[in-house]
Amino acid sequence: MRILILLILLQQILNFGMKAQSVEKRFRARELGIVVGVLPAGKYNAITDVKGVKVGHKTIIKGDSIRTGVTVIIPHDGDLFRDKVPCAFYAGNAFGKFAGSTQIEELGELETPIALTNTLAVPKVADALIQYTLEKSGMEIRSINPVVGETNDGYLNKIQERVITYQDVLDAINSSSSGEVEEGSVGAGTGTIAFGWKGGIGTASRVLPKNLGGWTVGVLVQTNFGGILTINGAPVGLELGKFYLKDELQKADGSIIIVVATDAPLMPNQLKRLARRAMLGLARTGSPSTNGSGDYVIAFSTNPDCRIKQTDEIYQPQTIKVLPNSALSPLFQAVVEATEEAIYNSLLKATTMTGYLGRKVEAIPIDKVVEILNKYNVLNYDKKFKLR
Amino acid sequence: MRILILLILLQQILNFGMKAQSVEKRFRARELGIVVGVLPAGKYNAITDVKGVKVGHKTIIKGDSIRTGVTVIIPHDGDLFRDKVPCAFYAGNAFGKFAGSTQIEELGELETPIALTNTLAVPKVADALIQYTLEKSGMEIRSINPVVGETNDGYLNKIQERVITYQDVLDAINSSSSGEVEEGSVGAGTGTIAFGWKGGIGTASRVLPKNLGGWTVGVLVQTNFGGILTINGAPVGLELGKFYLKDELQKADGSIIIVVATDAPLMPNQLKRLARRAMLGLARTGSPSTNGSGDYVIAFSTNPDCRIKQTDEIYQPQTIKVLPNSALSPLFQAVVEATEEAIYNSLLKATTMTGYLGRKVEAIPIDKVVEILNKYNVLNYDKKFKLR
Amino acid sequence: MRILILLILLQQILNFGMKAQSVEKRFRARELGIVVGVLPAGKYNAITDVKGVKVGHKTIIKGDSIRTGVTVIIPHDGDLFRDKVPCAFYAGNAFGKFAGSTQIEELGELETPIALTNTLAVPKVADALIQYTLEKSGMEIRSINPVVGETNDGYLNKIQERVITYQDVLDAINSSSSGEVEEGSVGAGTGTIAFGWKGGIGTASRVLPKNLGGWTVGVLVQTNFGGILTINGAPVGLELGKFYLKDELQKADGSIIIVVATDAPLMPNQLKRLARRAMLGLARTGSPSTNGSGDYVIAFSTNPDCRIKQTDEIYQPQTIKVLPNSALSPLFQAVVEATEEAIYNSLLKATTMTGYLGRKVEAIPIDKVVEILNKYNVLNYDKKFKLR
Amino acid sequence: MRILILLILLQQILNFGMKAQSVEKRFRARELGIVVGVLPAGKYNAITDVKGVKVGHKTIIKGDSIRTGVTVIIPHDGDLFRDKVPCAFYAGNAFGKFAGSTQIEELGELETPIALTNTLAVPKVADALIQYTLEKSGMEIRSINPVVGETNDGYLNKIQERVITYQDVLDAINSSSSGEVEEGSVGAGTGTIAFGWKGGIGTASRVLPKNLGGWTVGVLVQTNFGGILTINGAPVGLELGKFYLKDELQKADGSIIIVVATDAPLMPNQLKRLARRAMLGLARTGSPSTNGSGDYVIAFSTNPDCRIKQTDEIYQPQTIKVLPNSALSPLFQAVVEATEEAIYNSLLKATTMTGYLGRKVEAIPIDKVVEILNKYNVLNYDKKFKLR
Repeated sequence: MRILILLILLQQILNFGMKAQSVEKRFRARELGIVVGVLPAGKYNAITDVKGVKVGHKTIIKGDSIRTGVTVIIPHDGDLFRDKVPCAFYAGNAFGKFAGSTQIEELGELETPIALTNTLAVPKVADALIQYTLEKSGMEIRSINPVVGETNDGYLNKIQERVITYQDVLDAINSSSSGEVEEGSVGAGTGTIAFGWKGGIGTASRVLPKNLGGWTVGVLVQTNFGGILTINGAPVGLELGKFYLKDELQKADGSIIIVVATDAPLMPNQLKRLARRAMLGLARTGSPSTNGSGDYVIAFSTNPDCRIKQTDEIYQPQTIKVLPNSALSPLFQAVVEATEEAIYNSLLKATTMTGYLGRKVEAIPIDKVVEILNKYNVLNYDKKFKLR
Repeated sequence: MRILILLILLQQILNFGMKAQSVEKRFRARELGIVVGVLPAGKYNAITDVKGVKVGHKTIIKGDSIRTGVTVIIPHDGDLFRDKVPCAFYAGNAFGKFAGSTQIEELGELETPIALTNTLAVPKVADALIQYTLEKSGMEIRSINPVVGETNDGYLNKIQERVITYQDVLDAINSSSSGEVEEGSVGAGTGTIAFGWKGGIGTASRVLPKNLGGWTVGVLVQTNFGGILTINGAPVGLELGKFYLKDELQKADGSIIIVVATDAPLMPNQLKRLARRAMLGLARTGSPSTNGSGDYVIAFSTNPDCRIKQTDEIYQPQTIKVLPNSALSPLFQAVVEATEEAIYNSLLKATTMTGYLGRKVEAIPIDKVVEILNKYNVLNYDKKFKLR
Repeated sequence: MRILILLILLQQILNFGMKAQSVEKRFRARELGIVVGVLPAGKYNAITDVKGVKVGHKTIIKGDSIRTGVTVIIPHDGDLFRDKVPCAFYAGNAFGKFAGSTQIEELGELETPIALTNTLAVPKVADALIQYTLEKSGMEIRSINPVVGETNDGYLNKIQERVITYQDVLDAINSSSSGEVEEGSVGAGTGTIAFGWKGGIGTASRVLPKNLGGWTVGVLVQTNFGGILTINGAPVGLELGKFYLKDELQKADGSIIIVVATDAPLMPNQLKRLARRAMLGLARTGSPSTNGSGDYVIAFSTNPDCRIKQTDEIYQPQTIKVLPNSALSPLFQAVVEATEEAIYNSLLKATTMTGYLGRKVEAIPIDKVVEILNKYNVLNYDKKFKLR
Repeated sequence: MRILILLILLQQILNFGMKAQSVEKRFRARELGIVVGVLPAGKYNAITDVKGVKVGHKTIIKGDSIRTGVTVIIPHDGDLFRDKVPCAFYAGNAFGKFAGSTQIEELGELETPIALTNTLAVPKVADALIQYTLEKSGMEIRSINPVVGETNDGYLNKIQERVITYQDVLDAINSSSSGEVEEGSVGAGTGTIAFGWKGGIGTASRVLPKNLGGWTVGVLVQTNFGGILTINGAPVGLELGKFYLKDELQKADGSIIIVVATDAPLMPNQLKRLARRAMLGLARTGSPSTNGSGDYVIAFSTNPDCRIKQTDEIYQPQTIKVLPNSALSPLFQAVVEATEEAIYNSLLKATTMTGYLGRKVEAIPIDKVVEILNKYNVLNYDKKFKLR
């Protein structure tokens, strides 16, 4: 069986033209044969499979102490402030500083990029989003609702410094692109920790069969939480001897931000239903959503048909298209699956990081993980089972 | 000034062909010159001004002890279960037993008539709504969400008896009609108390000017709460010497159910915004929404354009029409005004009731109220001010 | 490997003195070696491990068509109405008819037993709880908040009949006991279906280590939902070829009621935090909480130290003891684990049922399940790993 | 009657030793005889009547265009981060950018001063609160939840400039004091508008009678909203010809932040109940809580007996004292009254302001207001009625 693992690894490595001696060669879950759930992934298995969505990172590593960054998710290429997208917010556990949630809850609209960063940088990044929106618009907008999520990278990053600048946020926005998304220890995931290993940014997507609507759901996560890690059901945390409540000292606090995008046409109250399902995907990785965890979800639809337009005729009804509630279950399943897989990707792509005060957080060891997953027989479900 | 009051009363009495010695001649607020707010009322100044809405009562007075009833509000004439209307629920203060709220919150739909009754009769009335829906449908429906609000008439009514039957609910439904709505000590308001006086059912409506959309908002209330009564701003409670916190014994508990109907095309999350404004109308009558008060609001739209249809093609987007959020403020104002006036109507139309254990609750004295309102100069604002 | 399974089964069968040919011999998860999570179970591995909690069932099987019942959970032996326990409510997905939720949300108190039943019987059971409370109290109580959860057994049960009576509820209450809890196709689980197999009542518990507080958490579930079943991480649904989205016809709707009890002293807002974690345990069994699922959680504390007493001195502060939020994470983990295991117990203990219109729902095949669990190596984690 | 008004004004003016020709002499509501409700005010009729609470302002007026500021409310003199106070948050209408709300909702605790400012300055002020907390603590705190409310002063203030600095926030904190609170066009109220007149900061308080607990409730508001102004019931907006919906051009958007402090010992879920009542006080002034209004309430208790301490023994229950829910109604009444009066104070104390682009917003004309209040007979209720 060990040989099998080596073969898989070898194959992956060859596929990517990497040298075997690369200490830190990292893989996405699918590359290792981890197939989560029953729905197919999109082309890039990323939030960018939702047409129009772009992701950008600014990784900030300075000297011995600064290990942080910014990640932005941009719903569409147009003027976000004028062409707001339907949006919902859900706090699974709200020990956190998410900015912009209440207006989303009230109006059901998103009007800026979503930025992720570290806990104490939320105000600076929010101010940068205001500045960006003012400059992009060129008008004297009086009210802007910047949306910023965070997790706490204060173990590896001297978080009190709050080094992130307007230019950093602008760099993240300007570097944003569709297609493949960089994962792991990048952007807002530069200094984060999950399940005791290096965490970071992860993403995944699902595409519904045509007869269930054919919509795409994409998820992007910033992982920084604890628990008892299972991967596709296998007890990886127990096997590796690193899990919540192992002993008194083993803590599990931290947070996760989950961004859900879809091209399904939905009303804000329906998007909130999707947002709540992201917590179920989180649960499947082994998080009990501990007291100190800021577990937040934001979900938006890029479908122009369900968008309320900003017009001068503010008292006129507008025609929109939306799905009935009865169409939502497959979307819920897609959110659960994509969230679970995005979290695995964040772990498996993250690389070992040394930071503040010389602290070092190891990347989860891929070879051991694969060994465990084989021991528990949980790889390549797509080949074992007749999935959609 | 006293002569003026008498003249007004005389005129009203003559208008209605009643004899002056009638102790219990009751008037609606508008008949006394109480003009609340700045928006015009609809034709009947009732929830039935919203096209399609019907109201029915079953008043149950038996022997010395039973003083209760049922009031139903029916959104449209069709098959409510198959042709569900968008709906939202809001609990201003939830010391109460409102049935059906969580499904409305989740799905944003109403699928039965709304029934109002007394606190301990909620289950019996809910069961009757199930029975009614099963019989009306003629199909083996497995899931029905009966919606029942209540206030506590246990002072005048031997509430523990739970005398209300399926037939009573059916009678209320079958007696329902559009047009004028009977108010005061009828239906679910038969045994209720408000501000220390006899409460009951009240209703009012507002119609927006064409350039603000032209929509109608109708409100119906079941009043059974306390506070420090003001009528159109005048300190009626203080003047009559009956108000919350007057002395240690003066309690203010009780409840109110507020039903808001509109023909404006709205999404459920927007209807929830309307529902929350009903509490502002309640506040203007003098309620602090005391601990023991079950203050619930349910709001629905009768506009077919915003209705999600039950189809076999459950994965197909549907085309609906809805207003943008920017159109809602005039609707909010309408909800506040209609709620305030509906509460006054419930008090002013209610008649003195003697009930359980010989307890007697007086109707608020119209002549004194008019005297006070004149003293405070708050009558006939429509003539004094240039209102819409 | 097949021999190993047979040996395990044989051992279990012998342990229980049952004959091997018993078609329907059923086992709890632990009896099969399914050890969920890292925390130890209580003595009975049941909600009754929380001191004072009792559970009672009334199973109602009549003729060919009636397959339903009532299950009650009683927080303590005293006068529940006078000695209310702190309580919280959470709707994971609210396509359901849970009675009593809004008052719990407002006041944070439970004042009746919690009853579970079928969807259309909620009013009859709620009325029975009112009757029971009036009779038990012997006083003219005017306001009672009956708490009733439901799932829909309408496939096996002619649910439209609403056959449940006051006596049935009383029987369930009178039969309630501490200690072992009957699971599977009993009480409110008589006619329910989960993951395409016979569902029912299940329970489990966890006890925290002394240095984490030593508190007990107990969970009881009524399972009637769908999804893609995993048991302790193993893909049982995929292996058995029965899972949500397998093909167009495979539906997953249904519901779950989750009752969480603890002796930890908590405030209502903290109990709500516990309640929300039950959804994470549900997620780990494979539910995406589909549109049609009524997934409700109610959580209460039996600890007298955190109970607000009903006194005549209503304006006097009361002394209570509560845990700080920082103590809650181990309780969250306990809720997740106990919920997951309770769901497995409900499936594994449920027995095949034939009902309305001759419909038959099979119990999940224990032998095949064990085979699968062995194939995926997920049994006996307590022996494999050093758990608490 | 006109003479009476002049006499009152003269008396007030003489009392304060001001010259009659002072155009902008402003008065608090009570100084004009406006007595709201039935409960007595505290010594200063201010939020600072709640023992330990301090308020500080930094008014920022620069050149022609900057008219803004910061107001801080400090719950107690100790280390706020270590000695957190129970706290709750409520969004009456959430078109706004309130920072810190979700963590308050989850944990029920406040750990920084509350700062109020303008809409686009929220991030800068939040960052300043982080800086302040880090510097005051002297430790490397990794997680701080800055709480910042805002209203939009963009008509009088060139809000896009975001001129507020750390030093401004520090100045507000350092200038904070107990006792009298400066009201009107100061601090965060420098550039705000209410009911078409100059708005600003206002405050008021209520003290419960001993036999209802004897607790104090204090409220501070930042007013910037619209509607149809009534003062103690009198139709001031109608009389002055300036009211929402008067014609198409009359807008009513804007916001209000309401800070509620009390020394009553309460749990977070009870404080949330208080917070919701502040909206009822707002309603009584004539606001329909328009679409564009960010109406937020934050409520905290300064009573040390209900405070959860930060200890090393995180798994130990703590003894606290709290009121039963049945004690809350008088506190609700106090919140309603103090909020209503605080809003009047903000209007009556605000002074005419000219700002950005030469725009001018007039202070509400005191003499006309008094004239109207006399016309409607709503002054000096304390002398007319036997109040508590």
